[in-house]
Amino acid sequence: MWCQSCKEEYEEEDAGTCKECYEEASETEEELKREIEDLRSRLHFLRLPSPTLDAASAPHADLLLHAIPSCSGAGGDGDAAARAPDTPAVPAHRVILASRSPVFRAMLENEMEESRSGIIKIYDVSYDVLRAFVHYMYTAEALLDEQMASDLLVLAEKYEVKHLKAYCEKFITSKVNNDNAITHYAFAHRHSAKQLLEASLSVLMDNMSTLADREEYKELVEKDPRLIVEIYEAYLNRQVNTAAEKDTDCSCRK
Amino acid sequence: MWCQSCKEEYEEEDAGTCKECYEEASETEEELKREIEDLRSRLHFLRLPSPTLDAASAPHADLLLHAIPSCSGAGGDGDAAARAPDTPAVPAHRVILASRSPVFRAMLENEMEESRSGIIKIYDVSYDVLRAFVHYMYTAEALLDEQMASDLLVLAEKYEVKHLKAYCEKFITSKVNNDNAITHYAFAHRHSAKQLLEASLSVLMDNMSTLADREEYKELVEKDPRLIVEIYEAYLNRQVNTAAEKDTDCSCRK
Repeated sequence: MWCQSCKEEYEEEDAGTCKECYEEASETEEELKREIEDLRSRLHFLRLPSPTLDAASAPHADLLLHAIPSCSGAGGDGDAAARAPDTPAVPAHRVILASRSPVFRAMLENEMEESRSGIIKIYDVSYDVLRAFVHYMYTAEALLDEQMASDLLVLAEKYEVKHLKAYCEKFITSKVNNDNAITHYAFAHRHSAKQLLEASLSVLMDNMSTLADREEYKELVEKDPRLIVEIYEAYLNRQVNTAAEKDTDCSCRK
Repeated sequence: MWCQSCKEEYEEEDAGTCKECYEEASETEEELKREIEDLRSRLHFLRLPSPTLDAASAPHADLLLHAIPSCSGAGGDGDAAARAPDTPAVPAHRVILASRSPVFRAMLENEMEESRSGIIKIYDVSYDVLRAFVHYMYTAEALLDEQMASDLLVLAEKYEVKHLKAYCEKFITSKVNNDNAITHYAFAHRHSAKQLLEASLSVLMDNMSTLADREEYKELVEKDPRLIVEIYEAYLNRQVNTAAEKDTDCSCRK
């Protein structure tokens, strides 16, 4: 027989689908591609010019965001940090920030200091992370590495930008390996990142024999031993379940 | 053989694809569906709350748009029309309008009257069409019928909102039939809507025998006879081409 798709000959045991299903699948594929094209064009339309590129790209801006890095002694002397030349302000628009984040919405739609002054201080964050954060609010796009993804996730959680948090979590989850699993596990715990928690816990449980040798393990035992307890509990739980499954398998065979 | 997709038996002459192509196609379909899900979620994130729903849905609005219907004697007495109780203002945001339309951008980023006052008059348009227009700027969505699609296309052309113009043109094109083809043909001509022009011209050429009996035909002969000439020219052109094709066919067979 001849395959209608690759136009090559094949034997009966290599048969895939009947003609009707092949034609249906081809139509479905065409429809899905048309839908993707339509969605991309709507996305392109809705995407806004990011005000973080240069001064000219932020006309009508009615807000200024200041990054206050944690090392600059924020809290007591935030104003000084905001004026420091190494952290220029990032321009933005109330309507955009309020529509993306319930925290900004509450801040801007009530008579709070930020709403009156049009100046918002974003604490414990570098200028680069703040820029990436604002850029995402306008474009739904971010250029990530692991550090940027972690920093943005923290900011997204703080300002309740769910879409960005999920985006960062997915990226970090794809990078989990035996070397970084403890760090990501603790991070996921701190920021309620369920998908990342499960992925890192799974990697940890697959490598229990070397777990206690790791530096990060020792640090976590000191800092937050309950998280280590949870790893052991999950591991034990899995062992018990695996044993129970084996038992069921054996009794079935009998 | 058994079809791996519908799980039913089929004969050799009904064979579609080999196993490898079937598996590849299934994977492709899964990938396309994942991409659609991702695009939809980004669209949902970028979509802005439309300020046209109620007063509360337009916080931080810095513009008011007034619809000045053509029947209200616009031009000379636009201000009176703008104040008329039957055309309430539609709130909007400079950053959104400027990012969607180069015409609004030029108006708002230069020191024009509209930019200073924050009031923009939109002439020859009903309140409902203006609302739908603004709604689209925020959501990339519109509820269309033929009249609304035509009205929005005109507005989209005037303010150079290409995405909306294409969206309306696609909708109208899907509605072209023998009864409305002359009207749509003339409309497409006026507003440089190429896809609609081709579709309506094609329907007209398929029904040339009844063309001259139609009321809209007689009106167009009075109003803009050159458009009627173009229909005849296109028809003649098609006849000549068809004849030439037949000739080629015949000489090939000889």
